[in-house]
Amino acid sequence: MMVINVGIIGATGHTGEVLIELLLNHPNVRISGLFNSGRGGGGPQIISDVFPKFKNRLDISCTKPDWAKIKKDCDLVFLALPHTVSMNFVPRLLSLGKKVIDLSADYRFANPSVYEKYYKVTHKDKANLKQAVYGLPELYRAKIKTARLLANPGCYPTSAILALAPLLAVELADKDSIVIDAKSGVSGAGKKVEKEFLFSEIQGDFRAYKVNAHQHAPEINQVLSKFSGKKLDVVFVPHLLPIERGILSTVYLKKKPGARLMAKNITELFRKFYKKEPFVRIKADGSFPRIRDVAKTNFCDIGVKDFGRTIIVISAIDNLLKGASAQAVQNMNIMYGLPEKTGLL
Amino acid sequence: MMVINVGIIGATGHTGEVLIELLLNHPNVRISGLFNSGRGGGGPQIISDVFPKFKNRLDISCTKPDWAKIKKDCDLVFLALPHTVSMNFVPRLLSLGKKVIDLSADYRFANPSVYEKYYKVTHKDKANLKQAVYGLPELYRAKIKTARLLANPGCYPTSAILALAPLLAVELADKDSIVIDAKSGVSGAGKKVEKEFLFSEIQGDFRAYKVNAHQHAPEINQVLSKFSGKKLDVVFVPHLLPIERGILSTVYLKKKPGARLMAKNITELFRKFYKKEPFVRIKADGSFPRIRDVAKTNFCDIGVKDFGRTIIVISAIDNLLKGASAQAVQNMNIMYGLPEKTGLL
Amino acid sequence: MMVINVGIIGATGHTGEVLIELLLNHPNVRISGLFNSGRGGGGPQIISDVFPKFKNRLDISCTKPDWAKIKKDCDLVFLALPHTVSMNFVPRLLSLGKKVIDLSADYRFANPSVYEKYYKVTHKDKANLKQAVYGLPELYRAKIKTARLLANPGCYPTSAILALAPLLAVELADKDSIVIDAKSGVSGAGKKVEKEFLFSEIQGDFRAYKVNAHQHAPEINQVLSKFSGKKLDVVFVPHLLPIERGILSTVYLKKKPGARLMAKNITELFRKFYKKEPFVRIKADGSFPRIRDVAKTNFCDIGVKDFGRTIIVISAIDNLLKGASAQAVQNMNIMYGLPEKTGLL
Amino acid sequence: MMVINVGIIGATGHTGEVLIELLLNHPNVRISGLFNSGRGGGGPQIISDVFPKFKNRLDISCTKPDWAKIKKDCDLVFLALPHTVSMNFVPRLLSLGKKVIDLSADYRFANPSVYEKYYKVTHKDKANLKQAVYGLPELYRAKIKTARLLANPGCYPTSAILALAPLLAVELADKDSIVIDAKSGVSGAGKKVEKEFLFSEIQGDFRAYKVNAHQHAPEINQVLSKFSGKKLDVVFVPHLLPIERGILSTVYLKKKPGARLMAKNITELFRKFYKKEPFVRIKADGSFPRIRDVAKTNFCDIGVKDFGRTIIVISAIDNLLKGASAQAVQNMNIMYGLPEKTGLL
Repeated sequence: MMVINVGIIGATGHTGEVLIELLLNHPNVRISGLFNSGRGGGGPQIISDVFPKFKNRLDISCTKPDWAKIKKDCDLVFLALPHTVSMNFVPRLLSLGKKVIDLSADYRFANPSVYEKYYKVTHKDKANLKQAVYGLPELYRAKIKTARLLANPGCYPTSAILALAPLLAVELADKDSIVIDAKSGVSGAGKKVEKEFLFSEIQGDFRAYKVNAHQHAPEINQVLSKFSGKKLDVVFVPHLLPIERGILSTVYLKKKPGARLMAKNITELFRKFYKKEPFVRIKADGSFPRIRDVAKTNFCDIGVKDFGRTIIVISAIDNLLKGASAQAVQNMNIMYGLPEKTGLL
Repeated sequence: MMVINVGIIGATGHTGEVLIELLLNHPNVRISGLFNSGRGGGGPQIISDVFPKFKNRLDISCTKPDWAKIKKDCDLVFLALPHTVSMNFVPRLLSLGKKVIDLSADYRFANPSVYEKYYKVTHKDKANLKQAVYGLPELYRAKIKTARLLANPGCYPTSAILALAPLLAVELADKDSIVIDAKSGVSGAGKKVEKEFLFSEIQGDFRAYKVNAHQHAPEINQVLSKFSGKKLDVVFVPHLLPIERGILSTVYLKKKPGARLMAKNITELFRKFYKKEPFVRIKADGSFPRIRDVAKTNFCDIGVKDFGRTIIVISAIDNLLKGASAQAVQNMNIMYGLPEKTGLL
Repeated sequence: MMVINVGIIGATGHTGEVLIELLLNHPNVRISGLFNSGRGGGGPQIISDVFPKFKNRLDISCTKPDWAKIKKDCDLVFLALPHTVSMNFVPRLLSLGKKVIDLSADYRFANPSVYEKYYKVTHKDKANLKQAVYGLPELYRAKIKTARLLANPGCYPTSAILALAPLLAVELADKDSIVIDAKSGVSGAGKKVEKEFLFSEIQGDFRAYKVNAHQHAPEINQVLSKFSGKKLDVVFVPHLLPIERGILSTVYLKKKPGARLMAKNITELFRKFYKKEPFVRIKADGSFPRIRDVAKTNFCDIGVKDFGRTIIVISAIDNLLKGASAQAVQNMNIMYGLPEKTGLL
Repeated sequence: MMVINVGIIGATGHTGEVLIELLLNHPNVRISGLFNSGRGGGGPQIISDVFPKFKNRLDISCTKPDWAKIKKDCDLVFLALPHTVSMNFVPRLLSLGKKVIDLSADYRFANPSVYEKYYKVTHKDKANLKQAVYGLPELYRAKIKTARLLANPGCYPTSAILALAPLLAVELADKDSIVIDAKSGVSGAGKKVEKEFLFSEIQGDFRAYKVNAHQHAPEINQVLSKFSGKKLDVVFVPHLLPIERGILSTVYLKKKPGARLMAKNITELFRKFYKKEPFVRIKADGSFPRIRDVAKTNFCDIGVKDFGRTIIVISAIDNLLKGASAQAVQNMNIMYGLPEKTGLL
């Protein structure tokens, strides 16, 4: 049986925690090294002291990045690091011949100036941007198979792109009419210790944030523009739900005047587009998804309905899984030729 | 000091409960009679047995409607009844000379065929529709002052109409582009004992429902069409939040090509429109409201921003207060010439 | 009409926020000054910028403590300050002849060494400890009437003492058998920005903390020992509920062998003990309280049942109201000879 | 590789749902038949229509019990049925030579009169009570290995018994002093469509129920009395938490006068007692468990501390897993000689 020796840099963060949970259940993975970002100071920690739920399951040490160990013990390294930190590690990992799956935004943008505008730092590794593959299997499976450096998509982009791709693949939508009203659970913000994420602020509340100014908008625009061959500029408003996990995106668009649908109905169009996908499920026509059905899974559930002038698409994912760590594992499976569902179902 | 003798029919429901809470704090109100709908059978109940939180505050009896008592003891009757039930009571109350504030949808539609289509019953009191006044003080204060029959607005319409009225009052918006993405706490559904409203279904979940098919859409369209003089047909998608109270509506619309704003900015337009309103608060330009700031109050907070082609307005209310019972009290204050804030601040 | 000119020091904290809300509804109170603790640096702030929900209701400035203004404008000052900070203000306020209601623990302990052990600081104002009155109206109303310095009780002690006092007033309970298993919403911790109070830590969780080591245990022991004339040492375990407001305390104790109840049943004993109390409600025998019925009120609901060898008492309060700010207002009403319910019902 | 052909009767209930989720991840299980209780009428249903989250994972039909299919296709049958329903199925299943794991209370009591008192029905299968094995692996592993009929423990008893067994195994505790204050998430009530389980009732609330009168008390007493050789009669008060999953039990007991601990400390006693257990984790001395660390796992976390006269033990489990379905799978693993963690870690 194939064994992949996996290292995680950033193992003590929230994404790292979820990733460990998934990898513990993956039959082809050996967790060979856990590392923090090396920035915090402080000595090694037993990972089950950091996350007591791993007690008796994974009681190994998490240290600062140990390059000798990485070189010797790891085939693949996941970077579960904040944006702007990953690019400090990627060049050396690639030069050691390691495969890299980066869960940050650092390698998602072909054009570094877009990244620099939204993430407000200078990109320090432009040389490797070109070989980075955007890890959305439903659109880029062929490239993922041979990727050495994989840029795992953002959570909102995953939900929005999967909702829109089937419509943009045909000449149906008025590309200037797209509105994405997205709602996410708080885990999207990791575990930042800030007043706005206290229980007493979130519980019983709901609000929009970064209204039409979120850094995931350019990511959505880049991927969908490239995919459709037309320059898109979507309206994107994220909101904060008082739940832990899940994103539901409600997408509105106008049909082009005179557009004709080449399918029994619009739901059929989506079914055909995703018919071979193991992790996309299309709801019956006129039925829409909910977060509970996808929470704790790698599925993206999608419902769509044609209201004449307007089309409404709703997609739901678990932001930490299909929107982050589980999609990363799906990508790993593809990169290693494993059945795509391995460790995920 | 003026004393209004108030009766409530439907006092044992959720709206009734909230209304009692408000009226207990109103210095000019004497609660003179509590009645159920008369449909359930069962004898009188002490209201504090139904709602233990009223123990030692209001321990009077709630009986089936007692017309002799209503005639003798009540000046004004609130109908806190389900849709299609209120219209059984209104004609007799009016013939007794009582003022009526109906919290159901029965008298909200000038055109009974719209009502009949969405509420799926025949309207039994078309004669009184004409004299019913739609109780949104911000648009109809003058008429409310002399109303004998007041139709209290729906919760979603309150939030949507207040968000859109200032824009429709000027020639700024493309009226065919309006999208209202609304999110409500579960109390909007009253306390229906149905599987979908169990804690184990709502907690951790989020979903759309009645997608572009909710009965509040025609209410919004009727009021805004009449107000703007143009026939509107908004896209309206409600969602269910895992919280108890509050509605946040995110409204998207396109500017008319060549439209010119006659104010410093769009926020200024809103400030001017609502400058005399005691219960509408406009956020600073580029700042948006949240549910926590309006929960348990009669306020509607609104934020708006001009993004060039697109305008985004977000409004927040407490669906049980500004969206129902407190707005009814505000209307009562207007009908009796009391300061509008009495009992509400 | 009597007008009390009130100042609040610590107005920008969570207790201050709740206190302002209450005082805005109090017909005999004029809020004459809002002050922060003076420790944070930073200039004056409009209180409705700190708490947007007060916009259009209270838009006055909150500054560092302004002694000239306090001297001139305030009759009574509430201290809504952290423990160990209040005692910096009390001596000067008393010397100016102001009445003081302190919501911290600084003046709750007759014996400063107990305070110093649990709060881990030296007490700086032992001189005034003697004149401080413990503000639990149900036990100390007479003294509260003439208090100049009132020590407002802790939240857990309020719930525990009210549950136990009727039993300790008679010779029924084995004083060594008392176990208090208390559960509190997170607002008990104020709005501390710490990892453990994040939504993602609290939601879906439940845990004990400071197991039999909480600083409210000696407060309970002091008050109940003095009240019963016997030295008590209760077992007290607080737990953290994933809700915002409310404390429910489940209290277990053994009956003394041969003890005889001088009432029809134990519920009757409680009813008699609290028969004149406006804010204590006793549930029917065998029926127990819940947090929802007391949330947002100043009530303490109590249920009790005699199980033979064992007696179980359960009490419920809103920790921020009867457990803090509303009890402070109740005390103010008593101190000024106002009807005790004023502004609270 | 061993394959166990498993049938589930009661597959459309909440316990059935969780059991399916677990069995889908178990490498040695083939789900050979899904059946409802046969009582509801209605035809076969695709299980993924009942539980949309299983779409594309398990799309087989759930029918009324099909005895021919059970006989032919199933080695083991799980009964995920309400109390008093399981005993209608057990005799026939045993006579067909099937192994049975019953998740209801029907076979938990050696003495049917105790069952009949608390469950308020006549026991219809007393003959098989004798061979039923109580499926708590930590106490009865040897008997479980050869069980044909396994009575899976209740959720509260699992948490309480594991907290108390190490203390009762030695002569340390005053057996008459035991108080169990237990708190459970709402999933313990399954998905009953009753007013008290609505989101609007549970959210923000906390309350005790069946105070010292819950049907799990006699189950705890039976098991611990048999285990300790002394007749126990614990005080047991369950409470309802506003969360979905998890039980935390806080257990209080007095030490016997003069009792001597034969371990470094009481935590050490627990560690030794459970040293070979794969699913019991003992916290460091003075540290206590929380629900989040055991939610979605089969672990029972326990913390204990000796306070002199009093000992406090706190245990935490996931009520649907270690308290129900995952413990059933653990039992199945033991019955079939599989490694006990299979499919559970």
